[in-house]
Amino acid sequence: MTYPVLFCFFSPKAKRPTETERCIESLIAIFQKHAGRDGNNTKISKTEFLIFMNTELAAFTQNQKDPGVLDRMMKKLDLDSDGQLDFQEFLNLIGGLAIACHDSFIKSTQK
Amino acid sequence: MTYPVLFCFFSPKAKRPTETERCIESLIAIFQKHAGRDGNNTKISKTEFLIFMNTELAAFTQNQKDPGVLDRMMKKLDLDSDGQLDFQEFLNLIGGLAIACHDSFIKSTQK
Repeated sequence: MTYPVLFCFFSPKAKRPTETERCIESLIAIFQKHAGRDGNNTKISKTEFLIFMNTELAAFTQNQKDPGVLDRMMKKLDLDSDGQLDFQEFLNLIGGLAIACHDSFIKSTQK
Repeated sequence: MTYPVLFCFFSPKAKRPTETERCIESLIAIFQKHAGRDGNNTKISKTEFLIFMNTELAAFTQNQKDPGVLDRMMKKLDLDSDGQLDFQEFLNLIGGLAIACHDSFIKSTQK
């Protein structure tokens, strides 16, 4: 998945991006893809959030026993309570999941 | 770049990970690679931070005219002032860069 003008201050397009640059580019592309479904590519609506969680994070979502978990996640992530997620709020979701995974990884290496 | 036990609550290993899962896995792997240089894989030291910035984000770093910018970035990111960056502090760096890139992308599409 690629989007134009994502390198901004990163490597010139002629050079191969580093893994960190690719990752930042991916985060923007994923947000753009999901936020843009309804024509407004700056915010992820509740419907877009549910589609995102059921496709990109399907394994996580299907693993939740509580059917209200996605509603509560959306409310908790929506810091300005506008009923949508902007890019910062979306990154908080990704960051929270990454930290949970990282903690689990560190614990598994300390056994 | 791959690390074991990173999928935690994501797709079973037999299934191909989604782009979001790959991205989260990459963030952990990048942090582990750089934090682990000195044997402590839970924190990025100042030396490790400089190596990270000069390799993974070389294009950004080389573009800075102020030679003190990396010192100031490290201080600002190091929220608990322990002279190192934990995974949350590292994610704040990635998030900040992603937001700057995303803003630049949105502006470029509104012209």
